[in-house]
Amino acid sequence: MKSDLPALMEARNLDALLVFGDALHNPPMVYFTGVRHVTEALLVVKRGEQPLLFCHNMERDEAASSGLATRSLTDYNFRAILKESNDDHTLANARLLQRMLTDAGITKGRLAVYGERDAGQAYSLLNAITELLPELEMVGESHDSVLMEARATKDPAEVERIRAIQKQTTEVVGQVADFLSNQRAKDGVLVDSNDQPITVRKVKSKINLWLAERGLDNPHGTIFAPGAEGGVPHSMGSPDAVLRLGEPIVFDIFPIEAGGGYWADFTRTWCLGYASDAAQALYDDVRFVYETLISEIKPDERCAVFQARTCELFKQRGHPTVNEDPSTKVGYVHSLAHGLGLDVHERPGFYGDPKTAKEFLCRSHVITVEPGLYYPERGMGMRIEDAVYMRPDGKPEVLAPYPLDLVVSLKQ
Amino acid sequence: MKSDLPALMEARNLDALLVFGDALHNPPMVYFTGVRHVTEALLVVKRGEQPLLFCHNMERDEAASSGLATRSLTDYNFRAILKESNDDHTLANARLLQRMLTDAGITKGRLAVYGERDAGQAYSLLNAITELLPELEMVGESHDSVLMEARATKDPAEVERIRAIQKQTTEVVGQVADFLSNQRAKDGVLVDSNDQPITVRKVKSKINLWLAERGLDNPHGTIFAPGAEGGVPHSMGSPDAVLRLGEPIVFDIFPIEAGGGYWADFTRTWCLGYASDAAQALYDDVRFVYETLISEIKPDERCAVFQARTCELFKQRGHPTVNEDPSTKVGYVHSLAHGLGLDVHERPGFYGDPKTAKEFLCRSHVITVEPGLYYPERGMGMRIEDAVYMRPDGKPEVLAPYPLDLVVSLKQ
Repeated sequence: MKSDLPALMEARNLDALLVFGDALHNPPMVYFTGVRHVTEALLVVKRGEQPLLFCHNMERDEAASSGLATRSLTDYNFRAILKESNDDHTLANARLLQRMLTDAGITKGRLAVYGERDAGQAYSLLNAITELLPELEMVGESHDSVLMEARATKDPAEVERIRAIQKQTTEVVGQVADFLSNQRAKDGVLVDSNDQPITVRKVKSKINLWLAERGLDNPHGTIFAPGAEGGVPHSMGSPDAVLRLGEPIVFDIFPIEAGGGYWADFTRTWCLGYASDAAQALYDDVRFVYETLISEIKPDERCAVFQARTCELFKQRGHPTVNEDPSTKVGYVHSLAHGLGLDVHERPGFYGDPKTAKEFLCRSHVITVEPGLYYPERGMGMRIEDAVYMRPDGKPEVLAPYPLDLVVSLKQ
Repeated sequence: MKSDLPALMEARNLDALLVFGDALHNPPMVYFTGVRHVTEALLVVKRGEQPLLFCHNMERDEAASSGLATRSLTDYNFRAILKESNDDHTLANARLLQRMLTDAGITKGRLAVYGERDAGQAYSLLNAITELLPELEMVGESHDSVLMEARATKDPAEVERIRAIQKQTTEVVGQVADFLSNQRAKDGVLVDSNDQPITVRKVKSKINLWLAERGLDNPHGTIFAPGAEGGVPHSMGSPDAVLRLGEPIVFDIFPIEAGGGYWADFTRTWCLGYASDAAQALYDDVRFVYETLISEIKPDERCAVFQARTCELFKQRGHPTVNEDPSTKVGYVHSLAHGLGLDVHERPGFYGDPKTAKEFLCRSHVITVEPGLYYPERGMGMRIEDAVYMRPDGKPEVLAPYPLDLVVSLKQ
């Protein structure tokens, strides 16, 4: 968690952190500032010191609401620097950054860099700044950065925010179930009171309204994928698709706090009216693996152990898995879980060799648990996903429990 | 526009483009793919050829819906590469990229890089790939990249998409005006039928619902800033603020097509019930400048000329401007306009020396026109903003006209 940062930085010999970008939908910045309408800002954190936020005058009040120390970016007069730099934007941006870093007392040592930015601009800017400040080493950490390491474990306030949005998400899921069960079927297709088929588009528009009523954003949309579409894990569901009784629907919903804070991530698979024997059998396998893994996950074990266990259980039930064929498109085709926080996919990751992988499941992690089976040629996919908090006492806790029934019965 | 890319690339001696990231809320990728649920993908465009999209198997159907040629990223087996690379993610990512670029026939020449990515990761990855493919020069273009140059001019289909979302946005603005005018005042404060004050939070929750009903995303929220808050251009408006009769409210709304396509951008300033003489006089200055500039903007002129003209007109009316003091916090404190497209702020930019700045206003640009005046210590800010299409015949066209009245009268 955030309080681990000084020790993590010391262990990797990092003297300071630099974060580029907006305080909206930009996790490394939001981690320090919270969600604010602050754009194209810059934040520096010297090891063991409080962060310092540079922002434009137009957004000074928004920046101040973060409670962080702020400085005006406008006062550096970028336009004048650009003129001095003969309109060379890369050089001008590097000179601007040089002045801000110098004023922040960061001119040598190792500086780790974060934040969403255009990849090409980041490359040219960071190479340019190393020429202007040759005693400063820019460190481009990867996947295993100190920031991702700190962010992987959540403090109690973060857990409560994730719990709250996950709970609001399950409320919307309940509204969707109610909505569907209140329709009726005609010729095996769900229709409204005017005999018009209920389409995926219609369901998603309801979902977006119900999310908006709760003040949640849904920037990546919702997976509501019936039949064969649900057999490809990230197919969203064609807007004009209709809903047939008995056909499994993969419903994966992942809204975010307004402006880009913490995510929810939740999946159920439903059959409307009834489930065929084949669908029920496949679902029972997924549910068995889900319940087994929920009971078995524990901290201080390699994450990859639980992925291997998932593959083992699915294989025992006759399904191909990514363990035997990493590029399989049928059976169990992805990984069991991922961290959940300011990114919808963050650390820990659940892959690698169960004997040697570096990633351990830890107390205070918040992860998904989401086994699934995919058979597009049989016209179905199945997935169950919940968000799980690895409590300080070592016990996993499903953050927002919701029924696991496959069948959503129609009331009429 | 997109059809200009081969010539633009040739002029800068670029052999290919590389775009990282999602096909959601990532303009350089969306420009080629459209909005798709395709994440952590990679797209390459060799000069004069069709784009090629690498994506994960789980998202193969979403990727195929783009109509582009696709290849499986999963088949490269990143986990095996990671193992070969002793769990060094930067090296493994560079080796993965090396293999994909090699298969795409891109191993030498100049490759311009784009797409939202963590700045530090982009820096380390792109430096690593230049060691693996030493004949390939990575080009990190800035602000004036070929892609931003191409994107600045819109083809007719793009203009119609921006017109459509801008029109939907003005419909929501109309709903907000109706909602406000149907309330009544008590002790000078707008209240609902239960005598409860209408707060900024309440208005914004209505806005989000009305946007969601139209299928629009609002990832950056809405500025609805009464009184002194409106005196700082990007203050969003405190959620608990109440609405006082006569107090100017800056209402700046900028939703985006679902999943991250084209943006709208629109501002009106309203006084509920009545406007004080001081507010009306300030507004009249802004409206005069707005109408003058709308009548004067024309293609083939430096954009900075129109910014200078705006400063001149405001100065004539006794207001401080950024022309005399670039960091002024009162008077006219920003620039007249910006390009509008897949980014809410894109080219062209309206700053620099009116005699030498490089940026010209061109036919087929879509820009905002948004003069404003800010006096937080007087408790007010004023801004008018519309989206304007510079038509091929040279005439500016407001894409979604909406009344310019300052006062929103109450019906009761």
